[in-house]
Amino acid sequence: MGKKNNVTFDDIAKYTNFSKTTISRYFNNPDSLTLENQEVIAKALVDLNYKENKVARILANGQTEFIGIIIPNLFLHYYSEMLDKILSTYEQFGYKFLVFIGNEKEETERRYIKELLAYKIEGLIVLSHTIPSEELAALGLPIVTIEREDRWVCSVNTDNYMGGCQAAGLLARHHCDILIHINSSSARNVPAYGRIQGFLDICKETKLPYELFLKEMGNNHESLKEHLTDILCALEQKYTDRKKGIFFSNDTHANIFLNLLVRKYGSLPEDYLIIGFDNSPVSREALIPISTIGQQIDKIAYEAVSLLIEQINGRKKRRPVLLKEPVHKVITPVLLKRETTERI
Amino acid sequence: MGKKNNVTFDDIAKYTNFSKTTISRYFNNPDSLTLENQEVIAKALVDLNYKENKVARILANGQTEFIGIIIPNLFLHYYSEMLDKILSTYEQFGYKFLVFIGNEKEETERRYIKELLAYKIEGLIVLSHTIPSEELAALGLPIVTIEREDRWVCSVNTDNYMGGCQAAGLLARHHCDILIHINSSSARNVPAYGRIQGFLDICKETKLPYELFLKEMGNNHESLKEHLTDILCALEQKYTDRKKGIFFSNDTHANIFLNLLVRKYGSLPEDYLIIGFDNSPVSREALIPISTIGQQIDKIAYEAVSLLIEQINGRKKRRPVLLKEPVHKVITPVLLKRETTERI
Repeated sequence: MGKKNNVTFDDIAKYTNFSKTTISRYFNNPDSLTLENQEVIAKALVDLNYKENKVARILANGQTEFIGIIIPNLFLHYYSEMLDKILSTYEQFGYKFLVFIGNEKEETERRYIKELLAYKIEGLIVLSHTIPSEELAALGLPIVTIEREDRWVCSVNTDNYMGGCQAAGLLARHHCDILIHINSSSARNVPAYGRIQGFLDICKETKLPYELFLKEMGNNHESLKEHLTDILCALEQKYTDRKKGIFFSNDTHANIFLNLLVRKYGSLPEDYLIIGFDNSPVSREALIPISTIGQQIDKIAYEAVSLLIEQINGRKKRRPVLLKEPVHKVITPVLLKRETTERI
Repeated sequence: MGKKNNVTFDDIAKYTNFSKTTISRYFNNPDSLTLENQEVIAKALVDLNYKENKVARILANGQTEFIGIIIPNLFLHYYSEMLDKILSTYEQFGYKFLVFIGNEKEETERRYIKELLAYKIEGLIVLSHTIPSEELAALGLPIVTIEREDRWVCSVNTDNYMGGCQAAGLLARHHCDILIHINSSSARNVPAYGRIQGFLDICKETKLPYELFLKEMGNNHESLKEHLTDILCALEQKYTDRKKGIFFSNDTHANIFLNLLVRKYGSLPEDYLIIGFDNSPVSREALIPISTIGQQIDKIAYEAVSLLIEQINGRKKRRPVLLKEPVHKVITPVLLKRETTERI
């Protein structure tokens, strides 16, 4: 008996003397049976060594419990930590994740999305920047994006504006003579642009002089180091003996800059204050622990999955409930003061 | 016409005047049709706005093209890079990945494997250490493990013994007075134990004095820093003025130790040589670039997926071919000399 490979509903029906309909109800709507009958069937499943085949169940009720994820890469710690936290929501929600690495290639990502749709995913989480939100919205599927252009779809983002204010505010309170912000040239419709706006507003409010360095510095260590060496040179010439407060758009950049200073001077000179963004491990584990604006990645991941499941459940109702407008959730960042701003 | 949600084989058959069997053959064995008929059906699919439903196809041929992955976490860069490379093999092989983060909890991981089996995965890649290979083998499913106890299942591992020899050999060639290896207390049946063995064999061969520090130092930065501070103290007392060659079991530990030295002395003292393991980004991006034994993660990932698919294909043959013995593939590590051993 235990030798049979695929135990069918027929087998279970015969074994329990219930009808096949009753067995089917046990799997799809168990509460429609008495507790006693549920127990009889549960026992039969053990006796028959029944193995659940979710693929077959999907065909019955159309619910795969799959969520697709398109993520640019896992090299940047921000992405790998986010994926870690998203996958871990399985414990709360039971949804499974099909993951694709997009590498920011638009055509590749379109192909991945098509593949995900063929597997009947119930929703999609997008962390990549390539495909416009209008095109995503047209897929007619529950979608949540994280930190990307989100006009037409639901999203969860850090309050980047508040983060920019917190960083510049801390540097201002430490009586820096000049505030500097180093960032890529973000498009205005990307959430991260808020960091620049927050920085600028605080500079204007405090009437402190400031300078923006906005340029693409590449995604590998060598190219970043080269660009940051140039910026260091420029700052040393232009602002000699002035107290420089520098806000970096991420901790990786802040750490490379810190290392350049330490290799030059043996330690962080008194006239430099540094603050990063993200609270990634590199900020805590740097030679001199780096102050930063912490993103609450666990919270962002949880809210993204919840917001997606809310949409999924809305569609499953007898009278489907669709959102009238995309929902945008904003998560508060946390200022973390460490040695690069608070000397000991 | 384009409005209909689910285009069935019936619809396609009617539209093309072929039988349903012909349509089915188009999807499951297209080469059994003439090229001309294939084209007629392909055109009909476009006209009818047919969307492939792979879930339905799975039921027809039993092939989900799913591979399950159990990975301990994505915090350690070794794991996130490995996952990145495994997921990227989709481009070559077309298999999709269902990913679970196990967090090294045995019962949780058993639950995840059960869930993966319910989704009819065709194979499983395991990077976690909790479940013995004998239990994995009993699942009766193609399996490949990476860097874990692998007596009863196929595996792909770095040649850890060679790595240990390379590291100790480099330190010996630099005329160190004492060779030191810092590692956790690895069990002998785990592949990484080879690093210790390789180190010991070179020490004996060169007749150089050596010391092993084998202990659990925890998985977070604070605890690692505390343990490594203790080791630094011990080394400073015991081996004053002697040239110390230190081989760390991973780059993260090597980097923390390097930072302790730089904070104490402003730079890396002449009497310390340091080499890590993995070639993770932290080794390249450290204040002083760290020499290391590079793991070829892209190759390991590729070989793991190939070895798994070989097993999967073997089972699909009309006369299924099962492996008589587990296959263990070994990938050569690469010695990378940087500033912590080659002063400039």
